[in-house]
Amino acid sequence: MRATLYISESAQKDITNFQCDNAIVIKYLEKSYFITDGRYTFEAKNSVKENVFVIEAKDGLEKSARLLLRELGVKKALYDPSKWSVFKFDSLSKKLKNIKFIPILNLSQKERIIKNSNEIKALTKAVKIGERAFEKFVEFIKNEGIGLSEKELHYKAIDFFTSNGAHELSFSPIVAINENAAKPHALPTDLRLKEGDLLLIDAGVKVDGFCSDRTRTIAVGKNMNASKIQKFSNQKIQKVYDTVLKAQESAIKAVKPEVLAKQIDSVAREVIANAGYKDFFIHSTGHGVGRDIHELPVISKSSSSVLKEGMIFTVEPGIYLPNEFGIRIEDMLVVTKDGARVL
Amino acid sequence: MRATLYISESAQKDITNFQCDNAIVIKYLEKSYFITDGRYTFEAKNSVKENVFVIEAKDGLEKSARLLLRELGVKKALYDPSKWSVFKFDSLSKKLKNIKFIPILNLSQKERIIKNSNEIKALTKAVKIGERAFEKFVEFIKNEGIGLSEKELHYKAIDFFTSNGAHELSFSPIVAINENAAKPHALPTDLRLKEGDLLLIDAGVKVDGFCSDRTRTIAVGKNMNASKIQKFSNQKIQKVYDTVLKAQESAIKAVKPEVLAKQIDSVAREVIANAGYKDFFIHSTGHGVGRDIHELPVISKSSSSVLKEGMIFTVEPGIYLPNEFGIRIEDMLVVTKDGARVL
Repeated sequence: MRATLYISESAQKDITNFQCDNAIVIKYLEKSYFITDGRYTFEAKNSVKENVFVIEAKDGLEKSARLLLRELGVKKALYDPSKWSVFKFDSLSKKLKNIKFIPILNLSQKERIIKNSNEIKALTKAVKIGERAFEKFVEFIKNEGIGLSEKELHYKAIDFFTSNGAHELSFSPIVAINENAAKPHALPTDLRLKEGDLLLIDAGVKVDGFCSDRTRTIAVGKNMNASKIQKFSNQKIQKVYDTVLKAQESAIKAVKPEVLAKQIDSVAREVIANAGYKDFFIHSTGHGVGRDIHELPVISKSSSSVLKEGMIFTVEPGIYLPNEFGIRIEDMLVVTKDGARVL
Repeated sequence: MRATLYISESAQKDITNFQCDNAIVIKYLEKSYFITDGRYTFEAKNSVKENVFVIEAKDGLEKSARLLLRELGVKKALYDPSKWSVFKFDSLSKKLKNIKFIPILNLSQKERIIKNSNEIKALTKAVKIGERAFEKFVEFIKNEGIGLSEKELHYKAIDFFTSNGAHELSFSPIVAINENAAKPHALPTDLRLKEGDLLLIDAGVKVDGFCSDRTRTIAVGKNMNASKIQKFSNQKIQKVYDTVLKAQESAIKAVKPEVLAKQIDSVAREVIANAGYKDFFIHSTGHGVGRDIHELPVISKSSSSVLKEGMIFTVEPGIYLPNEFGIRIEDMLVVTKDGARVL
């Protein structure tokens, strides 16, 4: 029987219902072991699921983990080589010559790739709270946002997306005006918002440990709104917007169980290529979302995933015209028995 | 001649003046190479120091790094095994049989342990901005904070310590009332602040890439202030407070070049032990601060560091009485030619 080793916080939480910045979790047969230091053992004991045993490491986590693996008589152990540092992995494994350590890339994310009904419920809740925050933030911008800089809007976005501190963020929000929206990883600048601008907002919230993720590209003005129906006065922008929206809708329609993830990517890419913007869709079409903001499956050209009922991921095509503007439209969806439901 | 490999963002920034979430930096002879992907090359080229060359990786950073190391004819390469994941390190090193990779724990932090005059200036600036934020935040609490919960105070602290978003935080501020201050890693709760409470605030700001760190434990009331002179109505609290302050002052007085870091720890620990609280000082006395909030030297029982002029670290003894209260007092100082200057 193989043991499984976890170290990332989202994996800790997934297996045991507790997480902290210094822990190793070992799963073996029906039991799990949460190894941490004295700062966290009290809270850990109060928080872990049944069949999880908290171990207080007196002399380093790796030493306690070694003792436990020996005591359990483990012969094989799976671990994720992208999560363990060389130092910690060597500290753990070098003195355990009798155990075979098997690297499995993205081990915990592979285990979490299909969401159960509780996880779907939690992710739906996060998406709804994120949606409400989008509406309120755009309402704020309509009334008080003209003249604010990207930096100021970014700072305000944190208030809205955390509901004034009640929730965490999934990631630092992106708020980009006009040509700055053409850089997919734009940092906020001193550029100020005007009527008639294009405004890209990419933001998500983390509620009860699960992330949301959404992008809207918005025509700024008296009737501005957070929906996907947007009217830009500039015809080129409108044409590109309509292309991205069509790419997104087509990709979403193509989602159902047993379809290849790369097929979804290619549907979106084809719509964009047909409109003449092939070289300006410079990232993959989507990514799984769960406890982490980026999970499996990856929806890209090179993805080997096959879609299954219960997978949750984003569909977010974009077109980025350097020094002009960028458009991205992103929603999260869950794969259903015979298609997809946008969350 | 040895090459040196860096991957952490603070090390990237230290060597090249740019950082991002996907880069490998290689230093060799007088030159450095910043290997990143297409999202970051433009900004990187505009930001790096002289003698730093930006390389856009087309097919993974590790592959570009391998090609470069071969091209340069590198025979030995230093790396920090606590910063590289097993996966990335294997991707880089397994195909380079002719290069000897030498693990150096905390490599970049070792290089940065003595701060130059620009770094001391930058850290002093961060400390001053942090100090001002402490004063304003405590003023706010005096006027409007009674009745707020720890969660609400924590959220307000972010406004004050970021100067409404102008600066980053060094870390998520700790704001803990009475018995919650007895947990050194307390998360904010719904407990509400009252007149006469004890309030522990541990917070820092990051200005121009350098961190500040400070803790004050404050008697809440009409005359409350952010200084180290505090009058508690409860005599036991006052006794413990005075003990911690004496421990901190004694430790600071003991700092000078060539003294062992563990000697500073033992000075603080002895004052606390003599007052009868030996078992309630449950962490080390301090830690270096720079680009990272935790750097070298470590000021602890087991530290092997010898203090040198230009080192910057915290001195932060504490006494934690479970279910009663906790006291910690923390300042940052720089080691001078013949002593220490509190920043």
